[in-house]
Amino acid sequence: MSRKSKGINAERELLHLLWKNGWACIRVAGSGASRYPTPDLVAGNKNRVLAIECKSGKGPYQYLEQEEIEHLVEFSKIFGAEPWIGVRFNNEDWSFYSPKELGTTKTSFVVTKESKGKNFLDLINETSKAF
Amino acid sequence: MSRKSKGINAERELLHLLWKNGWACIRVAGSGASRYPTPDLVAGNKNRVLAIECKSGKGPYQYLEQEEIEHLVEFSKIFGAEPWIGVRFNNEDWSFYSPKELGTTKTSFVVTKESKGKNFLDLINETSKAF
Repeated sequence: MSRKSKGINAERELLHLLWKNGWACIRVAGSGASRYPTPDLVAGNKNRVLAIECKSGKGPYQYLEQEEIEHLVEFSKIFGAEPWIGVRFNNEDWSFYSPKELGTTKTSFVVTKESKGKNFLDLINETSKAF
Repeated sequence: MSRKSKGINAERELLHLLWKNGWACIRVAGSGASRYPTPDLVAGNKNRVLAIECKSGKGPYQYLEQEEIEHLVEFSKIFGAEPWIGVRFNNEDWSFYSPKELGTTKTSFVVTKESKGKNFLDLINETSKAF
């Protein structure tokens, strides 16, 4: 399976998880190629809207380009959503980071297996809307 | 151009119009084929979220299947969005209808050129959130 297909599968998995837990969630068409700043998933539950950029893979480090994060933040600001990065290392559960929590390299953002992200339940049970 | 491509072009046109007017808007991936009830477009501007099912074509009547409307309403209820049907007859501007305003036939909903819908500016300047 190509890296792109694996990425889409991971997005779908998170989409199912959100619907199962009472959220309405959609995958964004052409999210990587759009001329607008868009995330991979958008989810809502009447009280909150989550914009999620997804990253998955087998390596111990997951890198996100600066532009991906900027687009996520810009979309969220205009839409009125909370910006989240969802990371899924192979054989581990999803963990979620706010853009401010990401480590940085010279040109990109990085999440390691040791980074302390929120788990799925923490994410959806968060009540603060301070974004 | 196939009917499907034309439909996607119309959706994209409305998407551009929303971004141009200060909204963040995304097209839903696989909206027609998804196992979940999803609309074609979702747009937000910090205060409001619009879920929009799009319909376009050259005939004087545009039909929407009952299921399309039910899905739009169900998605909107769970997400916390306003459900809208956006209709674009060839060579005319977009007009927008709330599900309650649509005419019905035995098996589907219908919009005619004479139906009185909101125009684009009315839609985005609406302040009521009574959905």
